[in-house]
Amino acid sequence: MKTKLVLTATLTFVTMSMFAQSNDGRIPAKGFAVFEEKGHFLPYNFSRHAVGDNDIQIEILYAGICHSDLHHVFADWGAEEYPMVPGHEIAGRVVATGKNVTRFKVGDYAGIGCMIGSCRHCDACEHDLEQYCEEGAIMTYHGIDRFNDNEHTQGGYSDTYVVAEDFAIKIPENADITKVAPLLCAGITSYSPIRQAGVKSGDKVGIAGFGGLGHMGVQYAVSLGAEVTVFDITEEKREDAMRMGASRYVNINNPEDLKGLDRTFDFILSTIPAQYDMTMYMKMLKLDGQFGIVGLPAFRNMPSLTVADLIFQGARKVFGSQIGGIKETQEMLDYSVEHNIYPEVEVIKANGEEIDKAYQNVLDGKVKFRYVIDMRTMK
Amino acid sequence: MKTKLVLTATLTFVTMSMFAQSNDGRIPAKGFAVFEEKGHFLPYNFSRHAVGDNDIQIEILYAGICHSDLHHVFADWGAEEYPMVPGHEIAGRVVATGKNVTRFKVGDYAGIGCMIGSCRHCDACEHDLEQYCEEGAIMTYHGIDRFNDNEHTQGGYSDTYVVAEDFAIKIPENADITKVAPLLCAGITSYSPIRQAGVKSGDKVGIAGFGGLGHMGVQYAVSLGAEVTVFDITEEKREDAMRMGASRYVNINNPEDLKGLDRTFDFILSTIPAQYDMTMYMKMLKLDGQFGIVGLPAFRNMPSLTVADLIFQGARKVFGSQIGGIKETQEMLDYSVEHNIYPEVEVIKANGEEIDKAYQNVLDGKVKFRYVIDMRTMK
Repeated sequence: MKTKLVLTATLTFVTMSMFAQSNDGRIPAKGFAVFEEKGHFLPYNFSRHAVGDNDIQIEILYAGICHSDLHHVFADWGAEEYPMVPGHEIAGRVVATGKNVTRFKVGDYAGIGCMIGSCRHCDACEHDLEQYCEEGAIMTYHGIDRFNDNEHTQGGYSDTYVVAEDFAIKIPENADITKVAPLLCAGITSYSPIRQAGVKSGDKVGIAGFGGLGHMGVQYAVSLGAEVTVFDITEEKREDAMRMGASRYVNINNPEDLKGLDRTFDFILSTIPAQYDMTMYMKMLKLDGQFGIVGLPAFRNMPSLTVADLIFQGARKVFGSQIGGIKETQEMLDYSVEHNIYPEVEVIKANGEEIDKAYQNVLDGKVKFRYVIDMRTMK
Repeated sequence: MKTKLVLTATLTFVTMSMFAQSNDGRIPAKGFAVFEEKGHFLPYNFSRHAVGDNDIQIEILYAGICHSDLHHVFADWGAEEYPMVPGHEIAGRVVATGKNVTRFKVGDYAGIGCMIGSCRHCDACEHDLEQYCEEGAIMTYHGIDRFNDNEHTQGGYSDTYVVAEDFAIKIPENADITKVAPLLCAGITSYSPIRQAGVKSGDKVGIAGFGGLGHMGVQYAVSLGAEVTVFDITEEKREDAMRMGASRYVNINNPEDLKGLDRTFDFILSTIPAQYDMTMYMKMLKLDGQFGIVGLPAFRNMPSLTVADLIFQGARKVFGSQIGGIKETQEMLDYSVEHNIYPEVEVIKANGEEIDKAYQNVLDGKVKFRYVIDMRTMK
């Protein structure tokens, strides 16, 4: 106990020196940004709003690289503003707290996922589904923070973040902190639809797309007792899938693998971030089966289902899902740590060349399964 | 009781004279067929298989004209075989029974809907969802009856039908027999998804497309205590919708009508048989709302939902639905008669010109709400 107090005091001291405030209370921050569509990552100095009464300031230890970061950098989902510091998978330590903060104290681990605010009073927010806030959830980056002077939000490829405590996630002290960051997006985005579909022991579950999200989905479904089949487009991930507990791996480019799968699944989760044949997966569902969709490809390659697909495969339900609410994100994080479920990560150094290289590997499908940037290596 | 026995005896006698068997046991039948794609209706003499041990023969009293009959006549859903006698909304009286038949006796009312057979042993059939039979449900017309020498099935615009008793629907004697036929397709097709969605008292329900199916859906939803909004593309049906118990009518060509509807419905049922904006309806669903799809447009005008639509409107579920199983069809029919729920019908005479004219009116959107052919007027 004494050690911890000393540690906290030390961290507070370190904080005071590392994260000075400017005269207007704003917090200087530095990180890596792209300065144009498809740009390279370069060092970027900026600032964040002051620590308000309900806010905490986090020293960022690790930031995950999500496939959606690439979509934003490449403007795949529409026009973006630059400079852009991506990153919505953030794990760090609390270095300052506002006077009303009750859930966190300096020295605690804390995480931030895809959103940092919402209206807090609409039907969606009242049902702990802040990601569907009727007034719009505020994104961790590429967002406009209407509660803080319409600040343009910048993400986690940086040294520090200031966030309202009710949008921060508590990370248990026994968590494997190196691997926690991707849980805040890849984890919750696969966990939530698996829960929405009511996956239970003995269910037959398909996970389509075996990347950052998919390899989390496999672990959650396996942990719930489901019999899991993994779908991807390569032979190279077959062993990984079996090692993570899948009972079957389907390389969809191998016609043999696809035989006998029609009408066999209770639930299929698609994490595929590219064009694909949705009808094929619909046909693999049992009657009353469900098809959950979380992979969002670029608009120019957007898959679709026709009315005919839906009617010919009637009695199956399809739903999309966005991340998860804050309450469910906390539940997912606690569940993950308790069940020792983590992403497989490759930790890279915080410099522009390393991040650029990681992006190229994600594009080329070479990542297994998540890059995490060690932000403390930033110079 | 005595009267009924006499009636039955009389009917049997009439039957024996009206529906003679040929030497091979086949039943001569006459009706109206199209002889080519988009053809006119002309008289057509054909035959049906003999009454097997498990079969009943029905004298057809009324046959409904379903919008899908037009799609088949026009080959909107792919190539068809001609001559084609359409009609899968059939109400009549039993005129003969096979020796194993237990549910029907001569003189009973009986109905036939969209299908007249299935494998009876697959997962779908065992769950009373014969319409999704893994070996294929046998359609009432434009089907191949693999249990009867691969006979090409012909539909209800005719004087008689021979069907296995387990695919016939019992029609209560107190039913309004003039109006029953359309329940066997329009009725069950709207009833089933309303039940699948679990519509209950107080729910806000939208019915999109206010034709044959839609006006049944309104009545079922109203009878369950839902607050019903009707969507169509014309002003001309506004009064009809309100008269049937809707609380709101939306002419989607009137921008004023569309205001304030986003995120307001627990369930929307689309019966629309043409191209339309599915995303608009997705946006009108509450969180956890459901979108049921039964209207199947021509393939050249097939609406679709993208992955982006599904994810941006996440936490809502979409499902297609085909008619209903035999058990649910019987349940629907009993429910309808008990609650006095019937289609609004215009009865026409059984001749080619009348049927041609009715088709043109359906195409022009002039039908309110279902044509029924009085088959006894056939000469």
